[in-house]
Amino acid sequence: MSRIESERDWIEWVTAKTRRRDARVLVGPGDDAAVLRPAGSSQEIVVTVDSIVEDVHFDGSATPYDIGWKAMAVNLSDVAAMGAVPATAVLAIGAPETWSADALQDVMRGLIAAADAYAVSVVGGDFTASPRGLHVTVTLIGETRGVSPVLRSGANPGDALFVTGPLGGSITGSHLRFRPRVREGRILAERHGATAMMDISDGLGIDATRLARASGCELRIESALVPVSEAAAALARTSGRTPLEHALGDGEDFELLVTLPTSVSEQALADPDLTGLTPIGRVVEGSGARLVDADNERNLEEYGHEHSIRHG
Amino acid sequence: MSRIESERDWIEWVTAKTRRRDARVLVGPGDDAAVLRPAGSSQEIVVTVDSIVEDVHFDGSATPYDIGWKAMAVNLSDVAAMGAVPATAVLAIGAPETWSADALQDVMRGLIAAADAYAVSVVGGDFTASPRGLHVTVTLIGETRGVSPVLRSGANPGDALFVTGPLGGSITGSHLRFRPRVREGRILAERHGATAMMDISDGLGIDATRLARASGCELRIESALVPVSEAAAALARTSGRTPLEHALGDGEDFELLVTLPTSVSEQALADPDLTGLTPIGRVVEGSGARLVDADNERNLEEYGHEHSIRHG
Repeated sequence: MSRIESERDWIEWVTAKTRRRDARVLVGPGDDAAVLRPAGSSQEIVVTVDSIVEDVHFDGSATPYDIGWKAMAVNLSDVAAMGAVPATAVLAIGAPETWSADALQDVMRGLIAAADAYAVSVVGGDFTASPRGLHVTVTLIGETRGVSPVLRSGANPGDALFVTGPLGGSITGSHLRFRPRVREGRILAERHGATAMMDISDGLGIDATRLARASGCELRIESALVPVSEAAAALARTSGRTPLEHALGDGEDFELLVTLPTSVSEQALADPDLTGLTPIGRVVEGSGARLVDADNERNLEEYGHEHSIRHG
Repeated sequence: MSRIESERDWIEWVTAKTRRRDARVLVGPGDDAAVLRPAGSSQEIVVTVDSIVEDVHFDGSATPYDIGWKAMAVNLSDVAAMGAVPATAVLAIGAPETWSADALQDVMRGLIAAADAYAVSVVGGDFTASPRGLHVTVTLIGETRGVSPVLRSGANPGDALFVTGPLGGSITGSHLRFRPRVREGRILAERHGATAMMDISDGLGIDATRLARASGCELRIESALVPVSEAAAALARTSGRTPLEHALGDGEDFELLVTLPTSVSEQALADPDLTGLTPIGRVVEGSGARLVDADNERNLEEYGHEHSIRHG
């Protein structure tokens, strides 16, 4: 095969190697979380894992507490994107000797605060040394409790497309202490029959393209409808990019991108528990994700930030 | 609180912070794996996580394939120690740019080979950069399938004490490409009613002391009965330590330490599927683990290697 350069390459490579007939595995690698049905269970569970690494996902400007919060919150966001209920987590921490025990305790406090805020029990952990760079890995198990997990692949032509809040500019702070959309994801799955869902981690441009590919549809996003955050607008004053470009490309928004049948769109938009829900476009026959306005359309794949396994 | 210096300190600290009433959590941090009962399930699952880190758990003398094998096998050993059946795993890999894609693929091949050998499906992963030092974290879920998980805390005075194979000298190679005692652990739990079990990762001395503490009993190990590996005997020729000292203290044996009611000891020793099973002592009222011979007895806590979160 060709050289492995990106996270997606790796996931595809491992997926190909590990594909097997296993009745317990309903959804394997490639979605926000795997979906499993353990022996003896009438319900599915979802499982996701994410690491955050010093000098890759955060630097010295992040407080230890924020690092811990983010390590748990990125996983909560993945469980939210399945429409599942976060339940239990295990941790793996690699700590360089340059990190004091006090700072590590603050990391754990942030992590536990995020777990507590979403009723997650931390049930185990592994603590080890690291030659350089703190890394914090959380594996989170969620429960489906009678609601089918919402995959990236379920969008249908005719569905309407939404995001749960404004996008862009997360680098100014919201990429750390963000609120994963756990409640919103569950409500969209349980109450409104979401057909496809994912969280926006690499930017709406890339992530919409992924959802389109997984569903075998085209996503058409109207540029005037994309909700732009205040942080994106502020950044644009000095960055030389437009607020919309920040909203499409910055990533780490951790809002949900979701498709709903048009028959329930009005009902979802009127739901008082989904105040941030914003229609941004629609699903049609075809492929890819496109940004459209009155005059032209552009592929969205060029926006967004895919976290490379290589530095820089 | 006092300074946090060891992995055990960390686990105790997190345990105290995260203790909560959660009917899903039957066993939290501190055993080989957590025991959970997800909503809607009639069966428990077990969950464990372990990282291995370059220049901490392995160095340049380990092949990439062996590193991958070990990363999965240490977790299989933890599930084995619960008497559960390994089922599904997720990975988190942090790779420095000094590691080639070819070498990383070999890591994955070793990891997948260990998963395949024990019928584990890899269902998800996270791949990221690391500023220095490869780290591989595996979270493994096991199924109990009608057999109660065997904890460290279940030993009773009167029980007999066993190990599943010879100990010591793992540094000469067996700490990498070892065979986790998955089948033996399941048989001991299901067929012979094991009362307490754990895997020997930090050395019989420390690990027996831990089992004694968890069970609130004393373990008395007869020095003449401790099975000493050939590697331990070979090492002793040049190390200035005795073969027995290597067997008690080297660690990373990944054999199981197990207690059985004396009423089933003979039956277990005659089991053709447990050829390595070796009686080494007994459980009595009291506390701690002691090495006894005709003349004297010594505390076992002084042996063994606790992996410190600090280097060296």
